[in-house]
Amino acid sequence: MSFKNSIMTQQKKTSKEIYEQACKVLPGGVSRNTIFRQPHPQYVAYASGCYVNDIDGTQRIDFANNMASLIHGHAHPAIIEAVTEQLQKGSAYTLATEAEVRFAELMCGRNSSFEKIRFVNSGTEAVMGAIKASRAFTGRPKIAKAEGAYHGTYDFAEVSQMANPTNWGNINKPNSTPVSHGTPQSVLNEVVIFPFNDIERTIAILDENADQIACVLIDPIPHRIGLFEGSHEFVEALFNWTRKNGALLVFDEVVTFRTNYGGAQEKYSIRPDITAMGKIIGGGFPVGAFAGRSDIMKVLDPRESKVLFPHSGTFSANPITTTAGRVAMELYNKDAVLELNALTNIARNQIEEAIKLADVPVSITGSGSMFRFHLKSAPPTTYREAYQDKETSAIAGELLDYLFYTENIMLLNTFSCMLSTAITQKEVDRLSDAMLKAFKMIKPKMQNLH
Amino acid sequence: MSFKNSIMTQQKKTSKEIYEQACKVLPGGVSRNTIFRQPHPQYVAYASGCYVNDIDGTQRIDFANNMASLIHGHAHPAIIEAVTEQLQKGSAYTLATEAEVRFAELMCGRNSSFEKIRFVNSGTEAVMGAIKASRAFTGRPKIAKAEGAYHGTYDFAEVSQMANPTNWGNINKPNSTPVSHGTPQSVLNEVVIFPFNDIERTIAILDENADQIACVLIDPIPHRIGLFEGSHEFVEALFNWTRKNGALLVFDEVVTFRTNYGGAQEKYSIRPDITAMGKIIGGGFPVGAFAGRSDIMKVLDPRESKVLFPHSGTFSANPITTTAGRVAMELYNKDAVLELNALTNIARNQIEEAIKLADVPVSITGSGSMFRFHLKSAPPTTYREAYQDKETSAIAGELLDYLFYTENIMLLNTFSCMLSTAITQKEVDRLSDAMLKAFKMIKPKMQNLH
Repeated sequence: MSFKNSIMTQQKKTSKEIYEQACKVLPGGVSRNTIFRQPHPQYVAYASGCYVNDIDGTQRIDFANNMASLIHGHAHPAIIEAVTEQLQKGSAYTLATEAEVRFAELMCGRNSSFEKIRFVNSGTEAVMGAIKASRAFTGRPKIAKAEGAYHGTYDFAEVSQMANPTNWGNINKPNSTPVSHGTPQSVLNEVVIFPFNDIERTIAILDENADQIACVLIDPIPHRIGLFEGSHEFVEALFNWTRKNGALLVFDEVVTFRTNYGGAQEKYSIRPDITAMGKIIGGGFPVGAFAGRSDIMKVLDPRESKVLFPHSGTFSANPITTTAGRVAMELYNKDAVLELNALTNIARNQIEEAIKLADVPVSITGSGSMFRFHLKSAPPTTYREAYQDKETSAIAGELLDYLFYTENIMLLNTFSCMLSTAITQKEVDRLSDAMLKAFKMIKPKMQNLH
Repeated sequence: MSFKNSIMTQQKKTSKEIYEQACKVLPGGVSRNTIFRQPHPQYVAYASGCYVNDIDGTQRIDFANNMASLIHGHAHPAIIEAVTEQLQKGSAYTLATEAEVRFAELMCGRNSSFEKIRFVNSGTEAVMGAIKASRAFTGRPKIAKAEGAYHGTYDFAEVSQMANPTNWGNINKPNSTPVSHGTPQSVLNEVVIFPFNDIERTIAILDENADQIACVLIDPIPHRIGLFEGSHEFVEALFNWTRKNGALLVFDEVVTFRTNYGGAQEKYSIRPDITAMGKIIGGGFPVGAFAGRSDIMKVLDPRESKVLFPHSGTFSANPITTTAGRVAMELYNKDAVLELNALTNIARNQIEEAIKLADVPVSITGSGSMFRFHLKSAPPTTYREAYQDKETSAIAGELLDYLFYTENIMLLNTFSCMLSTAITQKEVDRLSDAMLKAFKMIKPKMQNLH
């Protein structure tokens, strides 16, 4: 069979050799900075379920799942079957497909706040779409977002994502800091930055820009802020503020949708006006989506005499993605969500036990099927508290390398785990055993930190 | 076989019925405004080569190819085979794959100006990446682009794409006009608009913003301006201006890459600093890419102590897209490009003949495997000349509907053809026969126009 042959052919080269070739044609030898590691990235031969095999012959347990995008792990048979069938019929047309309608129905059926949905190609495009829809609906230019929150690479959405002590400014009015060099000052001026979960400061900051803000954008469990939940009071305060001031509330659930059947927002008493999604909803294929109130989504409607937000996209809602996404989301039903969250809880408890046994100042935050380690004894509650200095980052890097190279376990490079339904108790045990060893290993170094 | 069964199941519903369901969950019933048509879009059952079959039982010849993105038509066997094989190994990982390196090598091998390349998920992301790289490299905020040119939906890139007589202003200094309602004025201020192919005015406009411009962005054969080539003098003047003023020259070849083995830029004596690509290079899967000078692309390099343009993307360079793209581009070799361009030329000649026979004031513009009809006797040479008033647009719409519903031929809704290698002389004959009938049909109405 050509599959096995091709793997054998590939195995003749090492990751090191391929990387040398890659450096000639890709900046830094990679096409995504996330996958870069010293001395070189590993190259995948094949993956299945929760196991990834690199071309150098090492098999690893995958707790990263392509940056949290594979809710069923790799190469799920039902997704392969459905995609293989669709492939025979074509992958994209200048016409519609029933696949997009079935997928839209499924997604809208999961949450009553998803009255209408539009599909795009990435989480970045989803957030961009949600912001542009908010501007089109309100006619206002600004957005407000939390310091440190990651929302993709659209300029406005990425402001202050990498804020650090040298540039973040006074907590009462955090600076709008660029991620990319050359970001126009005018972009920074259109983005209002607030401290996540800090009601008083946030409302004061929003009030200063009350008539300019099109939307308040939050990730309800912001991964890069520290992977802790937005408090009920905070989220309700944002909701009430937007009601009072003619702004929209946008949730970025690209990462967090996995935590509940209808997304993380199910935990709250309020619903956002628009929700951006991506990652797991594509079943492993490029995807993004934004969904929300019908009256808002109407800005996209081509039947309107004046379309306020004209939008297409060559590959948006292609039948490969919408088919894979539908199958993945059908499988990720209410029971599957609960089961995965329960297993994640077991993993978290086992690792909490390991932390106690190793007696290290490590804490865990998280929600649903996600958790993140922090190299401090008390779990952080703000971005600035969760922010890692260089010394701590070096230790985290060492831990990640130990897990990757010695224990053959992949985590996200933010020191997080995003589980898939392919994970079983066996892999959870492997993880907690490995973490115990890892904690013991770095204990002496951590003591120097404090 | 389940493939045929599923087609038969789907055929139980009509496009009208599915659209009614779609309207409940998608704004306007569609997820891409391009595919909307009155009274409802058609839904695809399956497609193969240059034929698309809708679920209502109609087969159409496809000259649109999913908005010019399918260079080999639908469901090409070699692409299906390669993708099916990759599917078994997984569709995305938090690690690298050899597929991205092979694809990068192939693309960089096609044009010496592609020293390094980065893959993204759409043409929109490709242009955004090229602009952000230009800003990061130069530290400057503004971009300059041609009035009427389409470059995707990134705010800065879409400015003035839909400029019309009510808002475009004086040709000596065209207004920056928004596409989306609520586009911040600050975005409009960062975009300098010039008239395509008008050297004197363009240089004067650029000069006014000389020290602010990060890049001059052009599509060398801008489809929505009128699908005519940038003159050698114009393109060279832009190149020289950028050299003199510390700016970059960016080509958007998302659509035009098909016209030559190394893109439309091969026709010119100069090379852009960065080229954005998309559409055909993905082999039918979501794709974008930007490629250019090594020293510029270094802004993305994760090995740098300060990464000027940090960039990842969950699905960027996924092995499904890079595998399909590689196979499609291998098949679209130098001979295939020449053959397709030659067939397109025959089509164009046959339709020119039909125009003469019908004696209608219609002209054709285009290049390579693309051409576009204009309902005026002399081919337009500027955006403002090519701009269709309401009356003319209505006739163009009628023509497109006639071709679609009566002749079963699909064109792009810009009244353009973008051929695939699946097209043969037989389909070209069908097209030119249909066009002759169409021209005769609208002749009386066209006479009223003039």
